Amino acid sequence: MRSEFARLGLDGFLVPRADQHQNEYVAACEERLAWLSGFTGSAGLAIVLKGSAAIFVDGRYSLAVKDQVDLAIFKPVAWTETSPSDWLEANLSPGARLGYDPWLHTPGEVKRLGKATHAAGVELVGVEPNPIDTVWTDRPAPPLGKITLHGLKFAGETAKRKLARAAAALGAKDALLVSDPHAVAWVFNIRGHDVAHTPLPLGYALILKEAKPHLYVDARKLDNHTRDKLSGLADIEEPERLARDLQVLGEQGKKVVFDSATAPAKLAAILKEAGGACEFGQDPVVAMKARKNVTELEGARNAHLRDGTAVVRFLHWFAIHAPGGNVSEIDAAQALETFRRDTGKLKDVSFPSIAAAGANAAIPHYRVTIKTNAKIRRGIFLIDSGGQYEDGTTDITRTVAVGKPTALMRDRFTRVLKGHIAIARAVFPKGTTGAQIDAFARAPLWRASLDFDHGTGHGVGSYLSVHEGPQRISKLGSAALEPGMILSNEPGFYHAGHWGVRIENLVVVERREIAGAEREMLGFETLTLAPLDLALIEPKLLDGEEIAWLNAYHARVRREISPLVEPKVRRWLHDATRRIGARR
Amino acid sequence: MRSEFARLGLDGFLVPRADQHQNEYVAACEERLAWLSGFTGSAGLAIVLKGSAAIFVDGRYSLAVKDQVDLAIFKPVAWTETSPSDWLEANLSPGARLGYDPWLHTPGEVKRLGKATHAAGVELVGVEPNPIDTVWTDRPAPPLGKITLHGLKFAGETAKRKLARAAAALGAKDALLVSDPHAVAWVFNIRGHDVAHTPLPLGYALILKEAKPHLYVDARKLDNHTRDKLSGLADIEEPERLARDLQVLGEQGKKVVFDSATAPAKLAAILKEAGGACEFGQDPVVAMKARKNVTELEGARNAHLRDGTAVVRFLHWFAIHAPGGNVSEIDAAQALETFRRDTGKLKDVSFPSIAAAGANAAIPHYRVTIKTNAKIRRGIFLIDSGGQYEDGTTDITRTVAVGKPTALMRDRFTRVLKGHIAIARAVFPKGTTGAQIDAFARAPLWRASLDFDHGTGHGVGSYLSVHEGPQRISKLGSAALEPGMILSNEPGFYHAGHWGVRIENLVVVERREIAGAEREMLGFETLTLAPLDLALIEPKLLDGEEIAWLNAYHARVRREISPLVEPKVRRWLHDATRRIGARR
Repeated sequence: MRSEFARLGLDGFLVPRADQHQNEYVAACEERLAWLSGFTGSAGLAIVLKGSAAIFVDGRYSLAVKDQVDLAIFKPVAWTETSPSDWLEANLSPGARLGYDPWLHTPGEVKRLGKATHAAGVELVGVEPNPIDTVWTDRPAPPLGKITLHGLKFAGETAKRKLARAAAALGAKDALLVSDPHAVAWVFNIRGHDVAHTPLPLGYALILKEAKPHLYVDARKLDNHTRDKLSGLADIEEPERLARDLQVLGEQGKKVVFDSATAPAKLAAILKEAGGACEFGQDPVVAMKARKNVTELEGARNAHLRDGTAVVRFLHWFAIHAPGGNVSEIDAAQALETFRRDTGKLKDVSFPSIAAAGANAAIPHYRVTIKTNAKIRRGIFLIDSGGQYEDGTTDITRTVAVGKPTALMRDRFTRVLKGHIAIARAVFPKGTTGAQIDAFARAPLWRASLDFDHGTGHGVGSYLSVHEGPQRISKLGSAALEPGMILSNEPGFYHAGHWGVRIENLVVVERREIAGAEREMLGFETLTLAPLDLALIEPKLLDGEEIAWLNAYHARVRREISPLVEPKVRRWLHDATRRIGARR
Repeated sequence: MRSEFARLGLDGFLVPRADQHQNEYVAACEERLAWLSGFTGSAGLAIVLKGSAAIFVDGRYSLAVKDQVDLAIFKPVAWTETSPSDWLEANLSPGARLGYDPWLHTPGEVKRLGKATHAAGVELVGVEPNPIDTVWTDRPAPPLGKITLHGLKFAGETAKRKLARAAAALGAKDALLVSDPHAVAWVFNIRGHDVAHTPLPLGYALILKEAKPHLYVDARKLDNHTRDKLSGLADIEEPERLARDLQVLGEQGKKVVFDSATAPAKLAAILKEAGGACEFGQDPVVAMKARKNVTELEGARNAHLRDGTAVVRFLHWFAIHAPGGNVSEIDAAQALETFRRDTGKLKDVSFPSIAAAGANAAIPHYRVTIKTNAKIRRGIFLIDSGGQYEDGTTDITRTVAVGKPTALMRDRFTRVLKGHIAIARAVFPKGTTGAQIDAFARAPLWRASLDFDHGTGHGVGSYLSVHEGPQRISKLGSAALEPGMILSNEPGFYHAGHWGVRIENLVVVERREIAGAEREMLGFETLTLAPLDLALIEPKLLDGEEIAWLNAYHARVRREISPLVEPKVRRWLHDATRRIGARR
């Protein structure tokens, strides 16, 4: 790669862990950072200079990065402590030229980087093709996952109507560049197979105010039936054509809406240089996608019922086998995946399972590897996993005791449960954001001088990404919670070096009809159906309303799941969901 | 005023309700908006064009403005519905020239106005002197309130040390322009008498990195003793000299910190045009002032004990006289002020009292006038008031029943109380903002589909403004709550057209020592001492912890206030603070 620097007149180059769409899961051909450095985390940035190189990672990966990269070549840097801008200022001399790939950064990122480099007297230059691609001789080909139609029985609204709604949202603008493949999938009612865990068709769309939309996907991903269906909705073009089409819109002086979060800087530059105007903001399709319709919600309920039977079978299996001491983290993750596959409907797991025993459970984003794979012993076991089904995406975390838990474990689990119930039972007026209610989940921990260092909940798609925005429950959650939005409710507690607790159900925002209501109120319906381990609950810490919630939730799990599982599992479930008494 | 337009070549002029410092209370000579329009609210903006005029007010003043202004001349506009920018775009033609007084707007405001007028093809021009001042022949003279020293026994830290801390906060910058008179007062340990209700000395200061500070105040406000004391700390200059000093700093290419919230655009322009650089942000003195030291906190406790005796005497007086039906809102406000004056220590009330009976209490910012003055009858009476004492500023709201309250009143009052207690009992980690805990005060109302449309709490100064930042408890409260900050805790509920409830105590952020704490935790100490009306409390709605808080608070009020009041008041207080039982 450095040999390319001389040819290109560069003093350095930026290698983000990103594809053209800022996706969470990227195709193998986009894993430039992993190819270059060995680092496989889901977020990171390498800056390679002529004589040195740094790799920026966040707290989740501060240990892993040291195992994965050659420390003689890459210096790991904590992103939160040193910004890439500060590092560049200290390591580049005025007059230096720093390259970046304009397809892998948003215009906002380029602007921020430009400010920092300008202050240091460094020139920031877009470079094409990416010098890594020039030297990466065994680079995999781009994926050609088949595109399938996502039927109306799952989508609940025709693509035609969605496209019309998106066009109507344009206002005084002439076009919308849909650069987020999740939004492309949703608005065209299609799904793809280009990346792991999320059924994405990589591609773009242009929604025009006064013409047929354009869908930019590789033709080889389409069979004749799908092509025929989509041709009725849009002109189907090769992705390479998008640049030319934006060029033409630019020459016509058109105003095009760009999604700030995902649009590549390159495309914005093409439009602007041709004379057009970019309007940066949130893609209106992203907001439409977040509010699930009745069909999607019905699908979500069915998916959770099916997923719940798999989880209940797993918990029963675990209760029998784990105490023997011969079950490893990987065994448990595989067992759960097998139960999910046995439903006959699993398309994929929605992310790599987190199956964590003992101290591994104290690492919120732990991912089991052959190297770390621990045998499950007396204590606490945490499993965070999910499934992709055509009717819905699931995400659930259960923490279970192996053997008799300590009083401290019960205290902490119960506080986390109190926070979980506070969110599940929350009632709030229309317009309330996730930031406003996040502390409800933390208050029972705060009272004991405890907290957890992640958000309380993230948005979830409908047979799409298990992490979607704009909805979230966290101090950064600035989007109003709206009916139909699906979110996770997952407070936790991590006893560093010892064990961890997390309780996660998915919930959907729903209207709350209250007699004589003065305001339009919202609340949550819980979608996830699986028991919470009663052995970890200290009833004395729960108030009457919390106990009532727990008993009602367990009664519902028992009522809905029992008919779907075999007798021995049913008997176990009846005991696992037994009613508990109020505190004295 | 319009006659000046021709002379100045203007098509319109902006008249904000503002002085040079964006103060809440302004001197009589700064009441340009009231002089021009008759409108006396604390926030508003008139835009006067050649043939029309609009006055922009917020919801608090939508009714009052119609009574106060001549509707044949001024069209009232709701600020939240139509922005001045939108109105200007609709009412001015391209090429028009709109004037503003560069002393009465911050640079940020001018920038926003400039963008809007630029888009409409209108030229925004700074005009000096203000054309109103030219035609306002009986304009009052600027105030010359005496400046007094705020003794170390109240301030707790010498001005010398405060000035050194402020200078140390400059970092790479050369100077700090202190444009907020509250910050000038705090950093020099002085108080003034230039505006109502807040002991402000109008003036500026320049804190220089490598020279003696400058204090810009009218020399006539200083007696010889005060002048001598202050001369040791700073060069005392006439306010007119500030422009010249900024000019010199500009010519030297200096970087000066400007407070975005209060610095006038004129001063920023002088510095920039001379070649200097303005660094906009929060004045570091404002952040220092917000964290009260131990002496200020001890003072606050003493002030609240003294103020509490006045409030208790008032509540006793009210309990005797109000049921007779011959007490008016003004009578009640005057009685409370008299009890405060009787302490012998009252310097001023900290704002005009809100004394509201019946439907008037449903207006959160109601201010009694001779015209609206209602007799207090059976129902609910709300009084929100405060005192300025040399050792501290108080602000308290009590809602009391006259006669037997209805079940609805008791339900609503108790929900407001639950919210109040939730804030009073809150425990939260260091770094938590007011926005994160605001919903604790609302949750009991939300559960009944109710809410209140104001923040839960504002910051309070130490013998300074009853409204100070950056601390606040509201969805907009982005400042971290830090030990020593004083805030109000004042949830409410307003039954429009009928009655209103608000419960307000002041609280101070304090460290919470918790055995074996994992994190540095904070909580609140309640400062205000006065009973809450038990007749309005429905114990069935309170949980055991809430009842325990209420009983402990009342026991503390009784213990601390009883020794300071006469026997008949003491007897009343003992009954008013009696212990209540837990719900069954």
